[in-house]
Amino acid sequence: MSRNTQSLWDRPIESTAVSLLEGLATTRAIRRYTDEPIPEAHLRDIMFSATRAPSGSNRQPFRFMVLTDGNRAAQAKEIIAKSAQNIWAEKERNDGYAQGSGADPDSPKSRMARTMRGYVDNFGAVPALILPCMIRYRAPDPMEGASVYPAVQNLLLAARALGYGGVITGFHRPVEQELKTLLSIPEEVFVSCTLTLGKPQGGHGPVRRRPLDEFVFTDTWGLSADWAIDPPGTRFTSAGPPKKTS
Amino acid sequence: MSRNTQSLWDRPIESTAVSLLEGLATTRAIRRYTDEPIPEAHLRDIMFSATRAPSGSNRQPFRFMVLTDGNRAAQAKEIIAKSAQNIWAEKERNDGYAQGSGADPDSPKSRMARTMRGYVDNFGAVPALILPCMIRYRAPDPMEGASVYPAVQNLLLAARALGYGGVITGFHRPVEQELKTLLSIPEEVFVSCTLTLGKPQGGHGPVRRRPLDEFVFTDTWGLSADWAIDPPGTRFTSAGPPKKTS
Repeated sequence: MSRNTQSLWDRPIESTAVSLLEGLATTRAIRRYTDEPIPEAHLRDIMFSATRAPSGSNRQPFRFMVLTDGNRAAQAKEIIAKSAQNIWAEKERNDGYAQGSGADPDSPKSRMARTMRGYVDNFGAVPALILPCMIRYRAPDPMEGASVYPAVQNLLLAARALGYGGVITGFHRPVEQELKTLLSIPEEVFVSCTLTLGKPQGGHGPVRRRPLDEFVFTDTWGLSADWAIDPPGTRFTSAGPPKKTS
Repeated sequence: MSRNTQSLWDRPIESTAVSLLEGLATTRAIRRYTDEPIPEAHLRDIMFSATRAPSGSNRQPFRFMVLTDGNRAAQAKEIIAKSAQNIWAEKERNDGYAQGSGADPDSPKSRMARTMRGYVDNFGAVPALILPCMIRYRAPDPMEGASVYPAVQNLLLAARALGYGGVITGFHRPVEQELKTLLSIPEEVFVSCTLTLGKPQGGHGPVRRRPLDEFVFTDTWGLSADWAIDPPGTRFTSAGPPKKTS
């Protein structure tokens, strides 16, 4: 145990200036990182925050494989990097990222494509790769995610509080068996997502969503609550990947 | 539109003193509420925060049925209340809440049983019943929860920031068809959970979890990261419902 780690026994969780509501409104997907490692004290605070999340009957079935440096981590990152590059190349073609407004290098579509290309190409060098897992105690169930994804969201929010950013992906899926073998993850464990984390590099836009009245109904499906009014200054976007022709 | 609602157009999201990391560490399940309604301005801030959550390809498939007062809301609450009472009565028997330490009225097990009994018996009077839903765009998939439960967690955290509390349950499940008919929720929509929200009544203990080193592995499954050290003052608990004999 390093002197650094030893000191964690007495170290309270960091106090930061970001307020809870501000953090919820401003945490966005971050896919470009500097190469700074995340100090262990910050990893501790982030993972502590993640594991305070709720789970069904407080069973706490979530487990986190945290991969930073060393041989095994490098191998895991490379395995997922290759999968990420394949998945993105296919998506780029299928969703027509080079067509329509994708021909204009300043369009949101082109910028997104460049970000994704950079992300998958540099995936092997992400400062931290985290595999949030869940130990199943019953057959797969549509509600089981309620016992792991709240912890994943806490993780991203805690990272934001400490000046880091990350993103949830499914890039592990085609290579799940290979990863399980490499990391000795038991067969019955559900690898819920792939998450990368690091210090944000460059500028990042605001969180953009559809207007609030499209999300919030009362009494009848599709009937917007009349108080579902976005706060002043909210930025909007449409949903999902770009349409081929846009 | 009420004058109250009209004013939301100019009203920024509330600023509160709770810090992001503090909020993550102190948000716990709240099952006892005062009968105060939640003002529309607070519902707005809570739902706005919920919908800033990430989702796959930013598709934003989450929708929220928010049920507060009025006839339809009362009916939905009653339908789920009945289901909750049945589910809890069965669980109380099966998990032996009256056995072992359950015979001692001061044991954690007895206190939990009293809280749950009060929760389900008063379910029809919860200030707000929220059904977080997801519009599926593909067949049910184990990772789909990554596009709705982060929003659910944001919702609970925003409620905490504004002085409210809530809890995630699966009490809608046996009566999902009845609810879908009552609220005109389309057949293909996934009702991801039942969530109740209100102002906390009485004292509530701290968030308790297993020790951090049981959750955080590095390089190999089961190998705890040496920095996985709980901050001073952390409160612990074992996981899951009580054992019959404890």
